[in-house]
Amino acid sequence: MSHPQYLPSLRRVAVCGGTHGNEMSGVYLVKHWLQDPSELQRSTFQVTPFVGNPRAVEQCVRYIGRDLNRTFAPAFLNTKASDSDLYEIQRAQEINQIFGPKGSSQAYDFMFDLHNTTANMGSCLLVNSESNLLSMHMCNYIQKHCTVRHCPILFCQPPGEEANFTMSVAKNGLALELGPQPQGVARADQLAKMRSIMACALDFIELFNKGTLFPAFEIEAYKVVRRTDFPRYPNGEISAVIHPNLQDKDFQPLKPGDPVFQTFDGEDILDDSDDTFFPVFINEAAYYEKKTAFCKTKKGTFAQPAIQKGF
Amino acid sequence: MSHPQYLPSLRRVAVCGGTHGNEMSGVYLVKHWLQDPSELQRSTFQVTPFVGNPRAVEQCVRYIGRDLNRTFAPAFLNTKASDSDLYEIQRAQEINQIFGPKGSSQAYDFMFDLHNTTANMGSCLLVNSESNLLSMHMCNYIQKHCTVRHCPILFCQPPGEEANFTMSVAKNGLALELGPQPQGVARADQLAKMRSIMACALDFIELFNKGTLFPAFEIEAYKVVRRTDFPRYPNGEISAVIHPNLQDKDFQPLKPGDPVFQTFDGEDILDDSDDTFFPVFINEAAYYEKKTAFCKTKKGTFAQPAIQKGF
Repeated sequence: MSHPQYLPSLRRVAVCGGTHGNEMSGVYLVKHWLQDPSELQRSTFQVTPFVGNPRAVEQCVRYIGRDLNRTFAPAFLNTKASDSDLYEIQRAQEINQIFGPKGSSQAYDFMFDLHNTTANMGSCLLVNSESNLLSMHMCNYIQKHCTVRHCPILFCQPPGEEANFTMSVAKNGLALELGPQPQGVARADQLAKMRSIMACALDFIELFNKGTLFPAFEIEAYKVVRRTDFPRYPNGEISAVIHPNLQDKDFQPLKPGDPVFQTFDGEDILDDSDDTFFPVFINEAAYYEKKTAFCKTKKGTFAQPAIQKGF
Repeated sequence: MSHPQYLPSLRRVAVCGGTHGNEMSGVYLVKHWLQDPSELQRSTFQVTPFVGNPRAVEQCVRYIGRDLNRTFAPAFLNTKASDSDLYEIQRAQEINQIFGPKGSSQAYDFMFDLHNTTANMGSCLLVNSESNLLSMHMCNYIQKHCTVRHCPILFCQPPGEEANFTMSVAKNGLALELGPQPQGVARADQLAKMRSIMACALDFIELFNKGTLFPAFEIEAYKVVRRTDFPRYPNGEISAVIHPNLQDKDFQPLKPGDPVFQTFDGEDILDDSDDTFFPVFINEAAYYEKKTAFCKTKKGTFAQPAIQKGF
């Protein structure tokens, strides 16, 4: 049996809610934790909750000027922010200053980012890629120990694109994407699930910091490979909706020839790919403007080596 | 047997989608019907589809300056609109000019207004009150003949308040309130239901215009009697969410002492009324700002006389 990979202990952990101001589970949890952080406290590390986009939260919208969760790229972080810049560019620089700088040794050890989706994604765990060893072990721990069922792992980093999500500021990260929940609504069931997963994730860090050996494992995960837009009229307006057979079927196999859209004339539009995919973010409200009706993923099994805190 | 009440035939009918710009079933249906009105056409009357709040639709928000569906009151309609007025005041005056004037003999005979809600309201039929004889017969016809199940009737006019909804511009009106559907999302199932109900409602008008006698009947309906706000902190922020036992239970009996909220500390808050009510609009996203967590209704049975087209 080979040695585990030794990783440094985690000292500073951030929890962001309201990266999108109308995804209410994280907004209300973080506001609660800012008043009463007791349930975040563990003995071996410090946890800092914060509101990602306070102005968007105030107006209960996703963002003011541009999507904060696409703004942590060097082009936005490494220019001098001025008052004339979009609000989210200024805010991304503030967050980078407090919890980063991104890519530096001063950055926070871990960042959680709390999201909701209108899609039927269950309690989805978003990791950049399978090379995020610590996050992958955390996901494995959550799947094995959390009372919340159906926590599929999704790799959110499209191949060839850089990580520009809020959580990319810290050295490691995990985003929670819980749904279905409408924008601007807090459902008690989703709130409770998010809370349970967060508690379990913090327990994992505590155990890791205390020297627990986490053995090697294989785990199933989904990788985004393609985005599919709605059919549109020449003027850009959508000409069809998600087919009733596909609606709410996130993470379920979509086979070539399966119906994917239904036009306003009642015509079915069939999937024209030649392979089976597992669609996610089906009918996510915020993705209409991003020209994404759903994302196609491939399912894979990923082997991860054992880890333990280094000395 | 007494004579039926004789009512004038209907010649001009309007169908409004997008009174709220992020309630997508009506938005997409009306846009489709503006391109292809064939399914709205009947032999005895003319149907005019229109987008209620085009700027809000464009931005996919409920409204720009104020809620259009609360703007059809004399205070807004009877002043000279200037460019400095809120957009919805100008737009309400335009709609009133085209389809009204409200309360006048020139007004359209009937207006449909197509809405969605994030609450689990089914395919709810909104009528001002039981005195809207023609609308009540239409509801009865829909309940008996439409393939869509669960079409409860809700009287939306709070006692003592004047009708300031969009549909109040016409002589008669019916609003459809279909849910649950997130804001900014079009679900094929809700779209199909709205379409079926509209077809059935237009069939009813056609039969009425052709002289069909619609006999007297008794029908069950719900009347809003009270609005209940979320518990709030002194700073105005909500301190509890809808209790999981109440979530999605629209039109189901809520008894004194039943749990209605759950605080972020996990404490249950019980209903403190001394009577059974039937809550509706439970956790409607747009009502957080209106300080309404849900509306309490009373259920009643309402007798309606026979109607027939007058000569």
